[in-house]
Amino acid sequence: MKRGAAQVRINEVGPRDGLQIEKALVATPDKIDLVDRLSDCGFACIEVTSFTSARAIPALADAQEVLTGIQRRVGTRYTALVPTMRHLERALPCGLDEMNLVMSASETHNRANLRMTQAQSLAELTAMLARAAQHGVACNVSLSTAFGCPFDGDVDADGVLGLADHLIAAGAIGVTLCDTTGMAYPDQVARLCEIFLARHPGVALTLHLHDTRGMALANALAGWQAGVVSFDAAVGGLGGCPFAPGASGNVSTESLVHMFQCMGVETGVDLSALLEVAVGLSSLVSRPVPVPLALAGARWQTHPRPSGLI
Amino acid sequence: MKRGAAQVRINEVGPRDGLQIEKALVATPDKIDLVDRLSDCGFACIEVTSFTSARAIPALADAQEVLTGIQRRVGTRYTALVPTMRHLERALPCGLDEMNLVMSASETHNRANLRMTQAQSLAELTAMLARAAQHGVACNVSLSTAFGCPFDGDVDADGVLGLADHLIAAGAIGVTLCDTTGMAYPDQVARLCEIFLARHPGVALTLHLHDTRGMALANALAGWQAGVVSFDAAVGGLGGCPFAPGASGNVSTESLVHMFQCMGVETGVDLSALLEVAVGLSSLVSRPVPVPLALAGARWQTHPRPSGLI
Repeated sequence: MKRGAAQVRINEVGPRDGLQIEKALVATPDKIDLVDRLSDCGFACIEVTSFTSARAIPALADAQEVLTGIQRRVGTRYTALVPTMRHLERALPCGLDEMNLVMSASETHNRANLRMTQAQSLAELTAMLARAAQHGVACNVSLSTAFGCPFDGDVDADGVLGLADHLIAAGAIGVTLCDTTGMAYPDQVARLCEIFLARHPGVALTLHLHDTRGMALANALAGWQAGVVSFDAAVGGLGGCPFAPGASGNVSTESLVHMFQCMGVETGVDLSALLEVAVGLSSLVSRPVPVPLALAGARWQTHPRPSGLI
Repeated sequence: MKRGAAQVRINEVGPRDGLQIEKALVATPDKIDLVDRLSDCGFACIEVTSFTSARAIPALADAQEVLTGIQRRVGTRYTALVPTMRHLERALPCGLDEMNLVMSASETHNRANLRMTQAQSLAELTAMLARAAQHGVACNVSLSTAFGCPFDGDVDADGVLGLADHLIAAGAIGVTLCDTTGMAYPDQVARLCEIFLARHPGVALTLHLHDTRGMALANALAGWQAGVVSFDAAVGGLGGCPFAPGASGNVSTESLVHMFQCMGVETGVDLSALLEVAVGLSSLVSRPVPVPLALAGARWQTHPRPSGLI
């Protein structure tokens, strides 16, 4: 089997992409505690929160408080989602290592999610990249629905690559290809990532996968084989998309880390510590969050031999 | 990405590997109806039942009645699990297209599951293969725990290959490498399958995957890339293993078919018909059987555009 890199980076997005859709409001100190415990797991990157309007996503209205409250671990980059210029101004004083801007690769999802046309989003993001550069803050851009749109269906790969070209030229140091509603499939993922990496060898490419149709780990494998070294994931498989019907959670971080660990690929993440965080999510978000890997145990954890064997 | 075959065979094992572990007893006519509906989906193969002792697995005590009651579709092979010579004698008059014999690749699991040492199982299976050959019935052998044992941990690939060599020499026309408790990981699957296929180019190799740790589709992808063209799967992801702690269901047939269909790989299975069967399982087995793909829909099923878009 073609292998990918011996080491990958995991960007934990649970505190943002997970909590934004939870019905239960999580108290600010509990969010801070969650991020601190995730920091202790050794992530390369944590997407801490989102600077959206409190009206649109009340769950993340405390973005500034959370960012000022967390303990920052050396070796972890702390990012936040920043969708518009207005929010960027709020985010600038918060000492982010990186901002994650966002637009959709499909027109209808962009309008539904961001209430802008793609042309408007491109102009907004271009201005935001310039503004962030003035302040020396690096920006990544997440391209939602890069592998398919729940409304428009197939999304043209050339269109995705064209948006990426534009945003990289405007200053983005990284691009995340997002499978917002779990429509990606392995050879599609491999193809798009291979083209992207050949076209932009100096740009950090991240894959953001959802497990809506069960293919998240298969897609991660295909991406890794294609050369991707950076993956978004959410502890406990939290997440979804409020503006995308049928969306379900992100690829669960513990499953992704476990798969890489099985294959001898370094993630830097402490799986045992992470599983503890995952198991604690049910009480944090006040609903059962199943963690199959915690029930089964890592593959290297054997069970006692049954008694009374022949 | 390296692609595998343009066409694969799916062996639906839900009626056997699924129902054997369900607490609710399914009535014989309902089992027959289930198999008939699965036949209508176009499977290459269906594992209909298991000839085990009614005491060990009461759920499948009606093996003969089910096999004589079903409608046999041209193009589908009907098989059953047959663990010992005594059961083989019961199975012989049932007109099976193929028998599926079984032993474990690890000593402890073999003793727990079959109450024999591996040496005893090998002798038993060798005799069974001879007896089936006298009656002109082809036999496949399923090697449980081929990618790891919940008690013994890692299972030596050479040991697995040695068992396969022995059983093929004794007359098995096919071998199924079973990830009984979801311990397989992608590069391990690829490696073992590649070696097997190079060593036994004329033998039908099947992968039997469980999704205990979420890696079933990733492992299927790795197997397909390695050249595997035959896969076990259970509708609704039914299944487990009564003698393996932490086991959970088989890879769900609908997710596997969907992934292959996304990649343009022919399975011959009618996904819509299959999803209908999957959705009906909850009432059949008297517990909720989640079917995420039925909720989300296939990736090519778009949703209506939201109203009030800009």
